[in-house]
Amino acid sequence: MPALLDVARYRVLFADCDPMRIMYYGSYFRLLEIGRAELFRRLGHPFRDYVARGRYLGVIETTCRYRRPARYDDELVIRSAITHFGRARVEIAYEVVDTGGALVVEATTTHAVVDDDGRPQRITAEFKAALMTAQDAALEEERP
Amino acid sequence: MPALLDVARYRVLFADCDPMRIMYYGSYFRLLEIGRAELFRRLGHPFRDYVARGRYLGVIETTCRYRRPARYDDELVIRSAITHFGRARVEIAYEVVDTGGALVVEATTTHAVVDDDGRPQRITAEFKAALMTAQDAALEEERP
Amino acid sequence: MPALLDVARYRVLFADCDPMRIMYYGSYFRLLEIGRAELFRRLGHPFRDYVARGRYLGVIETTCRYRRPARYDDELVIRSAITHFGRARVEIAYEVVDTGGALVVEATTTHAVVDDDGRPQRITAEFKAALMTAQDAALEEERP
Amino acid sequence: MPALLDVARYRVLFADCDPMRIMYYGSYFRLLEIGRAELFRRLGHPFRDYVARGRYLGVIETTCRYRRPARYDDELVIRSAITHFGRARVEIAYEVVDTGGALVVEATTTHAVVDDDGRPQRITAEFKAALMTAQDAALEEERP
Repeated sequence: MPALLDVARYRVLFADCDPMRIMYYGSYFRLLEIGRAELFRRLGHPFRDYVARGRYLGVIETTCRYRRPARYDDELVIRSAITHFGRARVEIAYEVVDTGGALVVEATTTHAVVDDDGRPQRITAEFKAALMTAQDAALEEERP
Repeated sequence: MPALLDVARYRVLFADCDPMRIMYYGSYFRLLEIGRAELFRRLGHPFRDYVARGRYLGVIETTCRYRRPARYDDELVIRSAITHFGRARVEIAYEVVDTGGALVVEATTTHAVVDDDGRPQRITAEFKAALMTAQDAALEEERP
Repeated sequence: MPALLDVARYRVLFADCDPMRIMYYGSYFRLLEIGRAELFRRLGHPFRDYVARGRYLGVIETTCRYRRPARYDDELVIRSAITHFGRARVEIAYEVVDTGGALVVEATTTHAVVDDDGRPQRITAEFKAALMTAQDAALEEERP
Repeated sequence: MPALLDVARYRVLFADCDPMRIMYYGSYFRLLEIGRAELFRRLGHPFRDYVARGRYLGVIETTCRYRRPARYDDELVIRSAITHFGRARVEIAYEVVDTGGALVVEATTTHAVVDDDGRPQRITAEFKAALMTAQDAALEEERP
């Protein structure tokens, strides 16, 4: 299990739930989006700056395991970290936990950096080093 | 009540419903989008052609009255028509009815034609005439 | 224009936006849900307590005017207040503003209190009085 | 690659897309829901009948690979099949392809049958046999 950073809180809406009165399985992908956006913001590289230059984190793959249901008005904690940073791909791991710390969802997303036309862009060694150094420092800080 | 055209059918998903086990109030706006997209397609002016030229139907205003709930797996009929076509604005009326014909939702949307930067574009008399003539013909056809 | 309370902040997601690169017109209804949930929480009557007893705020009608587009990663402020409280209906007004205070959206929703089967429930004078007193106090507090 | 059945068509909405002007990664989970609902309907066991008796197909896990982007107004074909049917779990595979047959997304979902309170229910041998026999017949029919 990789070390993850607490990056956001999320309150479950009626909009997120379904007739089973639990959070809809597809609603969690918004939370993963929040998880990676707030992770990159915390690491000093908000997505907004990349979007402004026509760079996006395109999604190549995602996996999600649903461990226990979340219900209306539950407050959830979103945890995330970069788990692999290649020359063309970034892998991010996530956990969504309830405020008691119980695991609700664990997930991964794999991304390519792409331009406005969806063409993959090389990830520079500098960018990778800057993010991983920032993440190591943030994880160190959170360690009890 | 304006005459409307039957333009689409929609099957209610788990994703559309909420813990009240009825369709979430915000989910209907997808159905209205289907309603106007299929209306314009039927009138010979699919939105896709406008989007390809950087023209969009920006939303200025919407109203929606919820008459009776729709539930999981209900099949709904979406009805719509252009009710006003000004030099800068288009107004569209909608009804969502169940397969028994009972009214589920009635709604309106008001739009401006905008370019890629959101700047309002003048609606030409030719465009307006083409659409209204096509709509009159379609309504005539549907009349019992 | 009724006096409204600042009840929540919202960060615009990729999930909320559309190919016009602005917030999708239907995405605002999630923000209105947040607006009324946080309003009732602040007034000491969180919806969660009502849902636990099988009571819901069913939506009868909504109106929404789109004043200026919100874009990816914009931080928005959600403002709301109860504007009318009848024996069977509650009306709520909303504004969504950007952090500079510019109006993005103004909206209303009208609700009936319903039970688990969607049957309208009488709103008691005590409930109405408790909420309106709490709201007056909260508005007084926010006054500059 | 398992044999899959063509079970539904889907037209991409503005609501489904994001500022990259492609379908949002989370929007595909609605299509997977359509894929399994229409699969079970086709096999003679519409979910609606189970929901009416308080039985649901809870999601335990999902994986999704994004092969090429779908864009506004694209018409997509949803293909699906049950790939494993255990005593407590059902696995379903999906493909979303464009009308030219090119692969857009391939995905899997794993489910448990649960009751209204989320408690897992044993899948009977009769139910399993009925569905698998119906699926084999449907696949046979589609074979060129």
